[in-house]
Amino acid sequence: MILALAGGVGGARLACGLALALAPGELAVAVNVGDDFEHLGLSISPDLDTVMYTLAGIQNPETGWGRAGETWHFMETLARLGGDSWFRLGDHDLAVHVERTRRLRGGEALSAITSSFCARLGIAHAVVPVTDAPLRTMVNTDAGELCFQDYFVRRRCEPMVTGFRFEGADTAGPSAPLARLLEPGAIQGVVICPSNPWLSVAPMLAVARLRALLESKRVPVVAVSPIVAGNAVKGPAAKIMRELGIEASALGVARHYGTLVDGWVIDTQDAALEPAIASGARSVALTDTMMISPDKSLHAASEALSLMRRIAGTR
Amino acid sequence: MILALAGGVGGARLACGLALALAPGELAVAVNVGDDFEHLGLSISPDLDTVMYTLAGIQNPETGWGRAGETWHFMETLARLGGDSWFRLGDHDLAVHVERTRRLRGGEALSAITSSFCARLGIAHAVVPVTDAPLRTMVNTDAGELCFQDYFVRRRCEPMVTGFRFEGADTAGPSAPLARLLEPGAIQGVVICPSNPWLSVAPMLAVARLRALLESKRVPVVAVSPIVAGNAVKGPAAKIMRELGIEASALGVARHYGTLVDGWVIDTQDAALEPAIASGARSVALTDTMMISPDKSLHAASEALSLMRRIAGTR
Repeated sequence: MILALAGGVGGARLACGLALALAPGELAVAVNVGDDFEHLGLSISPDLDTVMYTLAGIQNPETGWGRAGETWHFMETLARLGGDSWFRLGDHDLAVHVERTRRLRGGEALSAITSSFCARLGIAHAVVPVTDAPLRTMVNTDAGELCFQDYFVRRRCEPMVTGFRFEGADTAGPSAPLARLLEPGAIQGVVICPSNPWLSVAPMLAVARLRALLESKRVPVVAVSPIVAGNAVKGPAAKIMRELGIEASALGVARHYGTLVDGWVIDTQDAALEPAIASGARSVALTDTMMISPDKSLHAASEALSLMRRIAGTR
Repeated sequence: MILALAGGVGGARLACGLALALAPGELAVAVNVGDDFEHLGLSISPDLDTVMYTLAGIQNPETGWGRAGETWHFMETLARLGGDSWFRLGDHDLAVHVERTRRLRGGEALSAITSSFCARLGIAHAVVPVTDAPLRTMVNTDAGELCFQDYFVRRRCEPMVTGFRFEGADTAGPSAPLARLLEPGAIQGVVICPSNPWLSVAPMLAVARLRALLESKRVPVVAVSPIVAGNAVKGPAAKIMRELGIEASALGVARHYGTLVDGWVIDTQDAALEPAIASGARSVALTDTMMISPDKSLHAASEALSLMRRIAGTR
């Protein structure tokens, strides 16, 4: 069993590739919940939904998030009524939020609800929120501390970032299905997807027992770089790195993860960085990491899995 | 100022006619909230919405309730996720429920929210819930006591009715805007719309201060019969009357209201009932009451207002 750590669009795309490469019993995708928030009285889990829609093959192929063939009649009327319309919720998408909110209020765990939704959407691989406890990414910026969605959607990542805080992380244990995967011997390797290291992966690693697995070096950990040719494939990762005074490159990301990651998959465009990343006894694989289709996702996933096998073979 | 008492589709249609006949300062529509319920975690007020959509001219002309040009993508996905789909919520319509629920949870009164929504939808006449307090119609049937929507929508009015209970009515005061209309001298007459006397009007009259206005005989009260030629124009009124052992006719309805109503507008199809209804010193107007268009609604409303003026003139 391989455990993938995924955030938003990039994470979902690699998770899709891994799901094509591995049988249902061989892959579990742990998903960030630091972006989750309450909006219009609804509990919204953007990363879980992006992974779920992508694995179900019903995601919007242009944006990467949201649903294909989505309609916006709810938002139209909401705006007409004077409601908050800065966070756009499609008509199909809304059913997930309303039903999830209802079930959460009824006392069900987010992981149980996610599992039920995935089954309904025909997803055979396990998708698990990293925790069932509230864990919220707070962004420290030159405009003060902001809730994640305030920073990310409402302010379009414009404020300058100075740091992060993961509210609730001190007490957030892994969700029940993730806890089972963290038992000794349950998984044979970890893949860190090309999700934003600060906004998507850091809140997951703020869950102590998950971080401890990576720090234990019990299983090989491979990562796919979210930075290609000095830019994030999607999202504000490169902008944030510059604001934090970190080199916006695959090398900067590799240095950020340090010894947590045993092997890196970087894009062929970053071949020049290979020696620097490989110093520090890391394994590096060069390949095309631009996951513009499920085929390309499968290709990147296969490279990550090959690298993991090579690392496991040398132990 | 005329006060109309309205429930669902029939009430909304007469309210539409009254709004065409009277200037905004001359009409307030008090609306039943006994049908309101919590569903999927949302606060739903079916009668308020039917009146609001009809006065805004955006109602579904076929069904009489819901929105014209509605789409059902939310329901499609909700059903796919295994959510409750017996009560159908359209994508446009849903915005009203989500935003109302959010504002109610924030502590706003239903009447204030309704007023804000109506303003946003361009409705110039006052639309006021009869109360801001929870008041719920419970239907006693051969299948036990049922919540209104369980009886009405889920069980399609199939159980045999033995009586009603209006939960919360003992303590429900009029909403703030209705309370102002109940001050002495504020209104010059009441129109009881052709809404179900048991399911729609009775819960309104269960609010003691509103019922006291009608019982005081301070202002003329005219009503338009919801029963035409022995049948309800829409809904289960005739079926319920038969189950309660009451003659399913305009006469049966007139006897039910008794001395509360001073003048009746009945359909020309029921001309034979005029003498019996008029005995008891009631005024009766015969006209076409089938409100199949706004013009026809205006016609019926004008007849009701003429009758009210005639009654006022004889006092």
